[in-house]
Amino acid sequence: MENLFWIGIVGALIALCFALIQSRKVMKFSEGTPAMQKIAAAIRKGANAYLKRQYRTVAIFFIVMAIILGVLALIDYVAPFVPFAFLTGGIYSGLAGLIGMKIATNSNARTANAANESLNKGLQVAFSSGAVMGFTVVGLGLLDISVWFHVLKYVFHRDMAEIAQTMVMFGMGASAMALFARVGGGIFTKAADVGADLVGKVEAGIPEDDHRNPAVIADNVGDNVGDVAGMGADLYESYIGSILATFALGYAAGYGWNSLFLPIALAVTGVIASVIGTFFIRTKEEASQKQLLGTLRTGTYIAAAIAAVAAAPITYFVMDGNWGIYVAILAGLVAGSLIGYFTEYFTSDSYKPTKKLAEASETGAATIVIGGISLGLRSTVAPIIIVTVAVIVSFLSAGGSLNFTGEATVEFTKGLYGIGIAAVGMLSTLGITLATDAYGPVADNAGGIAEMAELGEHVRERTDALDSLGNTTAATGKGFAIGSAALTALALLVSYVDIAEVDYSALSLTNPSVLSGLFIGAMIVFLFSALSMSAVQRAAQCVVVEVRRQFKEIKGLMEGTAEADYEACVDLCTKGALHEMVIPTLIAVVVPILTGLVFGVEGVVGLLGGVTVVGFAMAVFMSNAGGAWDNAKKYIEAGHHGGKGSECHKAAVTGDTIGDPFKDTSGPSLNILIKLCSTVSIVFVGLVKAISIF
Amino acid sequence: MENLFWIGIVGALIALCFALIQSRKVMKFSEGTPAMQKIAAAIRKGANAYLKRQYRTVAIFFIVMAIILGVLALIDYVAPFVPFAFLTGGIYSGLAGLIGMKIATNSNARTANAANESLNKGLQVAFSSGAVMGFTVVGLGLLDISVWFHVLKYVFHRDMAEIAQTMVMFGMGASAMALFARVGGGIFTKAADVGADLVGKVEAGIPEDDHRNPAVIADNVGDNVGDVAGMGADLYESYIGSILATFALGYAAGYGWNSLFLPIALAVTGVIASVIGTFFIRTKEEASQKQLLGTLRTGTYIAAAIAAVAAAPITYFVMDGNWGIYVAILAGLVAGSLIGYFTEYFTSDSYKPTKKLAEASETGAATIVIGGISLGLRSTVAPIIIVTVAVIVSFLSAGGSLNFTGEATVEFTKGLYGIGIAAVGMLSTLGITLATDAYGPVADNAGGIAEMAELGEHVRERTDALDSLGNTTAATGKGFAIGSAALTALALLVSYVDIAEVDYSALSLTNPSVLSGLFIGAMIVFLFSALSMSAVQRAAQCVVVEVRRQFKEIKGLMEGTAEADYEACVDLCTKGALHEMVIPTLIAVVVPILTGLVFGVEGVVGLLGGVTVVGFAMAVFMSNAGGAWDNAKKYIEAGHHGGKGSECHKAAVTGDTIGDPFKDTSGPSLNILIKLCSTVSIVFVGLVKAISIF
Repeated sequence: MENLFWIGIVGALIALCFALIQSRKVMKFSEGTPAMQKIAAAIRKGANAYLKRQYRTVAIFFIVMAIILGVLALIDYVAPFVPFAFLTGGIYSGLAGLIGMKIATNSNARTANAANESLNKGLQVAFSSGAVMGFTVVGLGLLDISVWFHVLKYVFHRDMAEIAQTMVMFGMGASAMALFARVGGGIFTKAADVGADLVGKVEAGIPEDDHRNPAVIADNVGDNVGDVAGMGADLYESYIGSILATFALGYAAGYGWNSLFLPIALAVTGVIASVIGTFFIRTKEEASQKQLLGTLRTGTYIAAAIAAVAAAPITYFVMDGNWGIYVAILAGLVAGSLIGYFTEYFTSDSYKPTKKLAEASETGAATIVIGGISLGLRSTVAPIIIVTVAVIVSFLSAGGSLNFTGEATVEFTKGLYGIGIAAVGMLSTLGITLATDAYGPVADNAGGIAEMAELGEHVRERTDALDSLGNTTAATGKGFAIGSAALTALALLVSYVDIAEVDYSALSLTNPSVLSGLFIGAMIVFLFSALSMSAVQRAAQCVVVEVRRQFKEIKGLMEGTAEADYEACVDLCTKGALHEMVIPTLIAVVVPILTGLVFGVEGVVGLLGGVTVVGFAMAVFMSNAGGAWDNAKKYIEAGHHGGKGSECHKAAVTGDTIGDPFKDTSGPSLNILIKLCSTVSIVFVGLVKAISIF
Repeated sequence: MENLFWIGIVGALIALCFALIQSRKVMKFSEGTPAMQKIAAAIRKGANAYLKRQYRTVAIFFIVMAIILGVLALIDYVAPFVPFAFLTGGIYSGLAGLIGMKIATNSNARTANAANESLNKGLQVAFSSGAVMGFTVVGLGLLDISVWFHVLKYVFHRDMAEIAQTMVMFGMGASAMALFARVGGGIFTKAADVGADLVGKVEAGIPEDDHRNPAVIADNVGDNVGDVAGMGADLYESYIGSILATFALGYAAGYGWNSLFLPIALAVTGVIASVIGTFFIRTKEEASQKQLLGTLRTGTYIAAAIAAVAAAPITYFVMDGNWGIYVAILAGLVAGSLIGYFTEYFTSDSYKPTKKLAEASETGAATIVIGGISLGLRSTVAPIIIVTVAVIVSFLSAGGSLNFTGEATVEFTKGLYGIGIAAVGMLSTLGITLATDAYGPVADNAGGIAEMAELGEHVRERTDALDSLGNTTAATGKGFAIGSAALTALALLVSYVDIAEVDYSALSLTNPSVLSGLFIGAMIVFLFSALSMSAVQRAAQCVVVEVRRQFKEIKGLMEGTAEADYEACVDLCTKGALHEMVIPTLIAVVVPILTGLVFGVEGVVGLLGGVTVVGFAMAVFMSNAGGAWDNAKKYIEAGHHGGKGSECHKAAVTGDTIGDPFKDTSGPSLNILIKLCSTVSIVFVGLVKAISIF
C-alpha cells in the first residue's frame, strides 16, 4: 500500500474544492439592506481585528517554541523534523480557524437576508457556510499529513519506523494553536456575552441583541472568534491527532505499511461520504423544527452509513481480511453517536433532565445552580461507560488480550491499534458533522443582525428556529469531539510508551512516580478549568464596567438617538482574551515537561492517564451542565414556569451565566488540553529520558 | 515487640477515661433557664430520634452484608473473620458518632449558659465536649484494633501474615458506617439549613435561629447529627484505616512484628500528647478572637510537637535505628499541617482569596458562584503537590527507590510502608485535633439556643466568636482528614495489590483493564457527588414546602403568639436523609465489586487509583469552595460591600446556599468514599480472583 498514499492528497483536494464551491454559493447571496451590511461589516471588522491580534500573540509563542525545539533537535533531544512540523501544524490549524471565521462573518447577514425570503434559503446559506468550515478542516488536515508523509518518504527517504514515530509528534503545533484559539476565543465570546447580558438584559432591561447595547457587536464577534474559529482549530487538531496516533500504533503493531495506510483510506472515504451526505440536506418551505432537524440528521446519518459500509471492503482489502479491525471502526462510530445521544438527552429541553432543571428554578437561583452541577456530574456516567466499552471492544476485536502479563506482546500492540482506529472511524465523517455544528453560530449571528437591523418578527423567528436546531446538532458534534479526544488521547498515551521505550512493568500504578503523575494530571485539569473560568470573569467584569459607563455617559443612548461605542467593547474583549489565554495554555506545555524532568517517563505516563481521565470527565460535566442551564432558560422563556421576566426566569438566567464559561470556554478547551499534554510529552520524550531527577 | 501490643489497650483506656472525665466536667454545668432547657431537650430528642432511625436503617444493610460475607467466608472467598470484624467496625464507628452526638446535645445549652457568665467558661464547656468526642474516637479505635489483634494472636493463634492481611479487611465495616453517617447526617443538616434559610431568612425576612422559624430546631439537630455524629464516624474510620493499612504493609515490607507494633506505639504516644495538649487550652476572660485562636493552636501545636519528638526515640527503638521511617512520620505530620494551612488560606476571610470572592458579589450571584468554583478548583493545587511530595519523601526515606523495574523488591515494599506510616503520623494526635474541630458545632448550637431563648446580645456575641473560631480550626482539621485519607487510600491500594498477589507488571497504566478501571473510578466520584448533592436539594425542597405551609396555615406564628410545629420539620429531614443516603453508599460498595468481576484485579487497581486521585481533588475543591462562600457571606455580613441586606449580601447568600451541600455533604463524604472503595475491594479480593470475566 505504500504507493497509494497519494489518495490522501486527492481526498484533501476533493474536500477543499467542495469547500470552495460552497463558499461561492454563499457569496452569491445578497447581504441585504444597508443597515444589515453595516452591522455585518462591523462584526467582520471586529472578528478580523481580533484574530489578527490573536495570531500575532500566538506567533511569539510559536517562534520561541520553534527555536527551543530547533536547539533541542540540534543536540538530538527531539526528532529533526519536529520544529518544522510544529510550525506547519500551527499554521494549518490557524488557517482552518481563519477560513471558517471568514466565511461565517460573510454568511451571517446573508443568512438573515435569505431567511427573510424563506426558511429553506436561510438554512441553505447557513449550512453551506458550516460546510465550508467542515470541509476546509478535513481538507487541510489530510493535506498536511499527506504532504509531510511524502516529504519524509520520498525526499528524505525515511523508513516506516521513523515516519510513524516522527509524524505523531506533528500534533503538538496543531494542539497548541487550537488551545490558544479555543481559550482566547472562548474568553472573548463569553466576556462579551456576559457583559452584554448582565448590564443590557438584567440592568437596563433591553432585549438581547438590541442595538442600543454597546456590547452587542462584541457579542456577535465573539460567536465568530470563539464558536467558529476556536472550533475549527480544535477539530482540525482532533482529526489529524487521531490519524497520527494511529500511524504510530500501526507501526508498533507490526502490520506494516497497510496499517499506516488504513486511517488515510478511511479519512478519504469519509470525505466522499460527507460530500454525498450534504446533498440530502434541504427542506420544504416553512418546515417545522422537527423536519429541519430531520433533514440535518438524514444528511449526517447517510454520510455515516456510507462511511461505515465503505469501510468494510476497504478494511478487508487493506488489512488482509481482518474483520476485527472493522469491528473496532464500527465501535468508534457507534460510541461517537451514543455519546452524542446522551449529550442531547442531558441538555435538550425535550427530555426530562433539563425540564426538571427548569423546575428547580422555582425555589431560586441556588437550587437551579446545584441542580445543574448535579446534572452535569451525573451526565458523565454514560459517556464514561461508552468510552470504556469502546476501548475494550476495539482492543479485543483488533486482536488484543486482556490477560496482560506486562510484556509488550504483538497481540497487545495490535489491540492498542484497534483503539486508535476506533478514533479515526469516529471522526471519518467530520466534514459533515462539523458542518452541522458550525452552522449554528452563523444562524445565531443572523438572528442578532435581524434584531439589530430591525427586520420583521418572522425573520427572527426563522433564525431562532435555525439557531435552536444548531444547539441540538452541536450536542451530537460535541459527542464526537469529546469521544474522539478520549480515544485519541489513549492512543497517544500508548504511542508515548512505545516511543519512550519504557518497560510496561515500570508503569505499574503502584509505582509512586506513576501515582504522583496521576495526581498532577488531575491537578492540571482543575487548575486549567479554574484559570479559564476566572479569566472569563475578569474580562467580563471589564466589559460590564464599560457598558455601564456608556449607558451613563452617552446621552440619548437608551432613547436610540445616539450610537454606542461598539469598538470600545470589542477592544476590551480582545485585550482581555489575549491577556488571559496565555497562562492556561502555558500550563499545558510546561507541566508535562517539568513532571518528566522530575519523575521521568513513568511520571509522564501517570500524568497523561490523569489528564485524560479527569479531563474527559470534567469536559463532559462542564459542557453538559452549561448546555442544560442554557436550554432550561430557553425552556422557561418559551413560557414555562412563568416565562420571561418571572422570578424563575431570573434564577435561570443566573444559571445560564454560570454555564457560559463552563460550556464555551473551559469545557471544550479541556478536549484540547488532554491532547496538547500528550503531544508535548511525545515531542519532549528525548529530553526527559536524557535528564530526569528520579 | 510482639508481646508489647497490650499498650494499645492501655492507650485506649487512657483516651476513654479522659473522655469520661471531660464528659463529667461538662455535665456539672447548668443548662440554664427553663426556656433553654426546653430547647435543648427538643434538639436532643430530634437528634436521638434521627440517629435511632438511621442506625435501624443501616442495621439492615449490615445484617444483609454480614450474611453475604458469611456465605462467602464459608466457601473461602473471603477471610473467615471478616464478617465479625465487619460488624464490630460498624458498631464501634457508630458508637463513636453516637457518643459524640450525645455529649454535644448535652453541651449546647450548657455552653450558652456558661458563655452568659464568661467567654472562657463557654470555651471550656464547648471544648470539653469536643474533647469527649475526640478521645472517644481514638479510644474506641485503639480498643477495636487491640482487642482483635489479641483475639487473632492468642485465641486463634494466627501468624503474622494472617493477622496483617486479615486486619486490613476490618476497615470495611467502619467505612460503610461512616459513609452512611456522613451522607445521611450531611443531607439532614443541609436540608434543614437550606430550608430554614430559604424561607425564613430570604422569604419571611426573620433572623437566623429565630424561634418563629419552623425549621429552626431541625437546623440545630442537623448540626449534631451531621457535623458531630457524621464526623465522629468518619474520623474513627480514618484513624483505624491508617493503622490497619500500615499493618498490612508492615508485614509485606518484611520488618517483622516491629513494623506492626510501630503504628500502635505512635497512636498511644499521640493519645498521651493530646491529653497534655488539652491542658494548655484556656483563655483570659474576654479574650480577643485572636487570643482564642492562639490558645487552641497552642494546645494542638504542643501536642503535635510532643508527638513528633516522642516519635523519634520510639521509632529508633522499635525499628532498630531506622531514621528513614522517622522522616516519613514527620513528612506526614508536616503535610497534614500544610494542607490545613492552605485550607485556611483559601477559605478564611483573613486572606485574599475569600476577600476577592466577596468582592465578586458586586456584579451579582452568577459572578460569585463562578468565582467560588474557580477558587475551589484552584485550591486543589497546593494539597495535591503536598500529598505528592509527602508520598515521594516518605517512600524514599523509608528505603524505596524510584528506579522501579516492576518487580516487588524488598526496597519497594519498604518504601510503601513509609507512605502508610506517614498517614499514621499525620493522625496520631487526632484526639486533640478532633476536639478543636468538634467543638465548633457545639458553639454553633449554643448560639442558636441563645437566640431562640432570647438571651442577651453579649451571649450571642460570645458564642459567635467561639463559632467563627471553630470554622478556622475546622479548616485545619479538614486538612488532616483529607490528607490522611489520601495517604491511607494509597496505602490500602498497595496493600490490595499485595493481598491480591498480582504481578506489578500487569498493573501497567497501558493495560486497558487498568485504564477502564481508572475511568470508572473517576465516574464513581462524579456520580456520588451528583447524587449526594441532589439528595440535599430534594430533601430541602420538602422542608421548604413544609415551612411555607406552616407560615401560611399557623395563625399568629409570625407574631410569635403561636408555636411552630418543629417536629414536622425534623421528621421530614429524617425521612429525606434516610431515604437518600442509601443509593450513594451502595454505589461505593457495588461498583468496585462489579468492576472486579468484569475486569479482574487489574481493573480494581485502576478503579482505586481513579477514585483516590479524583476523589481527593474533588473533596478539596468542594470543601474549599463551600468554605469560601460561607466566609465571604460572613465577611459581607460584617459590614463590607454594603453589609447585611444589600444586593451583594443576597448574591453571597446564593453562593453560600450552593456551598452548603458542597462543604457539608458531598465534599467530606468523598474522603470516606475513597476508603470504602479500597476496603470493599480488599474484602472481596478472593471473590474477584475466583470469578472475573476478563
